[in-house]
Amino acid sequence: MYTLGIDYGTNSVRALIVRCGDGHEMGTGIFNYEQGHQGVLLDPNDHLLARQSPGDYVKGLEESVRLALADAESAHPGFRTGQVVGIGVDTTGSSPIPVDAANVPLAFQPEFKANLNAQCWLWKDHTSHAEAAAITELGRRERPRMLAQSGNVYSSEWWWSKIWHCLKVDPAVFHAAHSWVELADWVPALLCGIERPEHVKRCACAAGHKALFDESWGGLPDKEFLAQLSPELADLRERLYEEVFDISVPAGTLCDAWAERLGLPAGIPVAMGEFDVHYGAVGCGIREGTLVKVIGTSTCDCAVLPAEKEAPVIEGICGIARGSILPGYFGVEAGQSAVGDLFKWWVEGVCEGEGSLHTALTEEIQHLPPGATGLLALDWNNGNRTILVDQRLTGLILGQTLHTTRAEIYRALIEASAFGARAILERLDSGGVHSDRIVCAGGIAGKNAFLMQTYADITGREMALSSSNQTCALGAAVAAAVLAGPEQGGYASLTEACGAMTSLAETVYRPDPERHAVYNRLYALYLDIHDAFGGVNRSADLSRIMKDLLDIKDKAAANA
Amino acid sequence: MYTLGIDYGTNSVRALIVRCGDGHEMGTGIFNYEQGHQGVLLDPNDHLLARQSPGDYVKGLEESVRLALADAESAHPGFRTGQVVGIGVDTTGSSPIPVDAANVPLAFQPEFKANLNAQCWLWKDHTSHAEAAAITELGRRERPRMLAQSGNVYSSEWWWSKIWHCLKVDPAVFHAAHSWVELADWVPALLCGIERPEHVKRCACAAGHKALFDESWGGLPDKEFLAQLSPELADLRERLYEEVFDISVPAGTLCDAWAERLGLPAGIPVAMGEFDVHYGAVGCGIREGTLVKVIGTSTCDCAVLPAEKEAPVIEGICGIARGSILPGYFGVEAGQSAVGDLFKWWVEGVCEGEGSLHTALTEEIQHLPPGATGLLALDWNNGNRTILVDQRLTGLILGQTLHTTRAEIYRALIEASAFGARAILERLDSGGVHSDRIVCAGGIAGKNAFLMQTYADITGREMALSSSNQTCALGAAVAAAVLAGPEQGGYASLTEACGAMTSLAETVYRPDPERHAVYNRLYALYLDIHDAFGGVNRSADLSRIMKDLLDIKDKAAANA
Repeated sequence: MYTLGIDYGTNSVRALIVRCGDGHEMGTGIFNYEQGHQGVLLDPNDHLLARQSPGDYVKGLEESVRLALADAESAHPGFRTGQVVGIGVDTTGSSPIPVDAANVPLAFQPEFKANLNAQCWLWKDHTSHAEAAAITELGRRERPRMLAQSGNVYSSEWWWSKIWHCLKVDPAVFHAAHSWVELADWVPALLCGIERPEHVKRCACAAGHKALFDESWGGLPDKEFLAQLSPELADLRERLYEEVFDISVPAGTLCDAWAERLGLPAGIPVAMGEFDVHYGAVGCGIREGTLVKVIGTSTCDCAVLPAEKEAPVIEGICGIARGSILPGYFGVEAGQSAVGDLFKWWVEGVCEGEGSLHTALTEEIQHLPPGATGLLALDWNNGNRTILVDQRLTGLILGQTLHTTRAEIYRALIEASAFGARAILERLDSGGVHSDRIVCAGGIAGKNAFLMQTYADITGREMALSSSNQTCALGAAVAAAVLAGPEQGGYASLTEACGAMTSLAETVYRPDPERHAVYNRLYALYLDIHDAFGGVNRSADLSRIMKDLLDIKDKAAANA
Repeated sequence: MYTLGIDYGTNSVRALIVRCGDGHEMGTGIFNYEQGHQGVLLDPNDHLLARQSPGDYVKGLEESVRLALADAESAHPGFRTGQVVGIGVDTTGSSPIPVDAANVPLAFQPEFKANLNAQCWLWKDHTSHAEAAAITELGRRERPRMLAQSGNVYSSEWWWSKIWHCLKVDPAVFHAAHSWVELADWVPALLCGIERPEHVKRCACAAGHKALFDESWGGLPDKEFLAQLSPELADLRERLYEEVFDISVPAGTLCDAWAERLGLPAGIPVAMGEFDVHYGAVGCGIREGTLVKVIGTSTCDCAVLPAEKEAPVIEGICGIARGSILPGYFGVEAGQSAVGDLFKWWVEGVCEGEGSLHTALTEEIQHLPPGATGLLALDWNNGNRTILVDQRLTGLILGQTLHTTRAEIYRALIEASAFGARAILERLDSGGVHSDRIVCAGGIAGKNAFLMQTYADITGREMALSSSNQTCALGAAVAAAVLAGPEQGGYASLTEACGAMTSLAETVYRPDPERHAVYNRLYALYLDIHDAFGGVNRSADLSRIMKDLLDIKDKAAANA
């Protein structure tokens, strides 16, 4: 028996057929979104804007599943589509979609087809920074506990900021929208044929991490609070939801129409959606004491803590939500807004190179000792998500001489991302989220050995790898296998399912003590500029930074 | 009648035949140095090292003059080499050459041919930063007045730092050297057939700006001071010089051997050498109230003040020297260590483009309003020469998003260089060196209209241009015309010669008030990071920098 995991990424959707017995990946299908720039709708006049066409989601669903089934059939002659016993879906988020009363995206109406505000507001859209700041301010003043659980700063990437911004810049779209549905809820609802937004089961993951939902304060933020932002938001609350669900229950069952479109058995369970990285964490076998890092265009860090009555509060960790990853646990989430995107910016945006340039640059600098470039960078080209929780921050590179090469800057950007990762690790640890192992997944973790070694050297921690390179889809398939249950070839519990269906790769990146020691010096300098430009330290002494970098560089050259 | 100006640059030597009557440029010849990378000998393991082969100087002298004469002869049938009545030479500096007792560079001896330390120590060599720091420290403590006149910081680019560093890293070279001679003194001496270093007339320019020479404290630094650095330096002092000369006297007359090699009349006067930019200032018609900016690979700013008994002291202005530009005036010098080199680094070193990419990048960003890139940079890739006087500073670029382009960064570097220029202008002004006009020269000033307009917009000052694009060689030719005197078709004074032989171009770059206003905001942010990383402000609040840049960018986008 098999389950199907469908992973909606930033540029494409992937479907994965997984054998329940051992997690073997039978077949996969990828559909690259067709609209916009690599699937993202942009506004050349506003670099903060990032939208996505819901039409790509529907077409991508059909195409990716068709390809995956064909792939499984061709690779495994015994495979039959009738043996698929469940479906799970993960997506990016917070990616809210304005929908009409029939749960159809406004973007499907001719009137709104070409309107960027009627599309899906992709996770990395930052147009609503002013609204985020206002929610933060009001939240700190009026609902401090609520805000603290989200890291004390409400983000422009999140649900309420985006919807409020839509109301401000395009009231026609806002008023035409009967409701808003997260992509992670919308795709399962589509598969289940749910035709009213009120009937869409909303996942604990999106609600808790992005929409300020917690049962301890009665679900979504109260009407009074929302009304202080805008009366229209308070009205909208009534058309949203009062209950959320973790992955112990299904979103529904596959409807006849979609069963036919996909060639799958009608009535099989469709799991509750989760954000990609949360299902990725499941696909990495997350448990208490495991930090999962899903390293791709951005990085998301996940951990779980046994659910108590009240969630812990850790400054700058923007999200702790009940049941968002595993039932019975708080899901703890942190992250870096640009990781792969940062390297891609350098290679494609500045060097104007092809993808192969990543390899060439890596080969050029991977054997340099730490500090040899003399460079230091901040990884904030897309803002800082964890610790500073501030999208209005930007990139920085310093230490250049007239001899600095593009490859050296590439390396500095990799190191910057590793320094950012270390800062998160330390913040989690000091907040009581300890980890005895780190499991990495995502496109970059599996492909970029130099980056992984640098992460190990800079953090001083071992970096393990998931054996799957599609952990998000795998995690969704694991959840589906539990919903299918043992009688259908699935499992009675997530622990059992994870044990059988997920595993680690043999490769483990171990820190080198000498490199770690040099990186400790560089990390101290990183923190100096991090705190100075991030506003943590408002009387910073940066007079030694450039000289210390040169000293470290000289020492690296002398030892080489 | 004509004079010959010979200009030793960083990558090539140029000879220029000038008609005394009106400064018309009759012919020119260029010789690109053949050794090293574009004429500079480098050490791949030490980016601070920059040397030059004296063999290139000799070959370049012969070749460039031969080409210039041929050029003049072919363009002007009436021209005859017998009508050349004087020669002037300008060079980079401080570029000291170790020589033997016959004034022959050690580099010409087989034993030292391949030894980088036996070559000319090119102006931009920064290997001796530790020695510079030690001289600075001792000087401040023991000879504060002497050091103050050089901006209170002795540079690694200068005479004593370099010679002392040679003693430390290569005593064999130091001990084999009977003396050291600045390139600016060595070439005129070569032309005059002077075969003992003791007989070489040393120019006030190199001595005063680089070797701490001033008659008010008895010439070179006293033996006691030098002995505290190293007894060997004190010994060397005796083999150096006790007197220096401004351009009111000749270095000598053209010897028979070089007259024959060059095909010129023996016995014509050879002017005292000056550094390129000082003769460039003469070629720009410098006078009291004129600031000359020679903008090339680096920028040098020159002004003159009537000579009093004691020179004024202006913090961070590293050099004020008696007679260094015009007889009877203090020459005041400031500068930026990387200007053209900075843009070249970006285009060739990082973007890996051809020279034509400068034009393409400029076209892409020249019409953007100020602030539209959201970027801010420091122009310190080769250290900061004026104001901070610190070679151990490095470059910085901040404000990058994932959409920042190579062209935008190119523009930010141009702006950084203009901000640096403004900082110098303001420091000179506050130090009493007022200017009622700014005359620009150098390769970049004549070629790069966008840069010149940006300089005008950022400084809020009109930028005039010399009509010559070879002002350094022209200035040397002007000095030669005065030495030739009226009876040989020359002039009785520098004022007369400058009036007849130099002129301004019609193009004047005038500041745009709106752009200037936006740049004032950006300049304030530039000063914040300048002072924070330069060590001027050790409790800096940089928390607003990135946000202010985004605000200015948003405003620029809104106005566009």
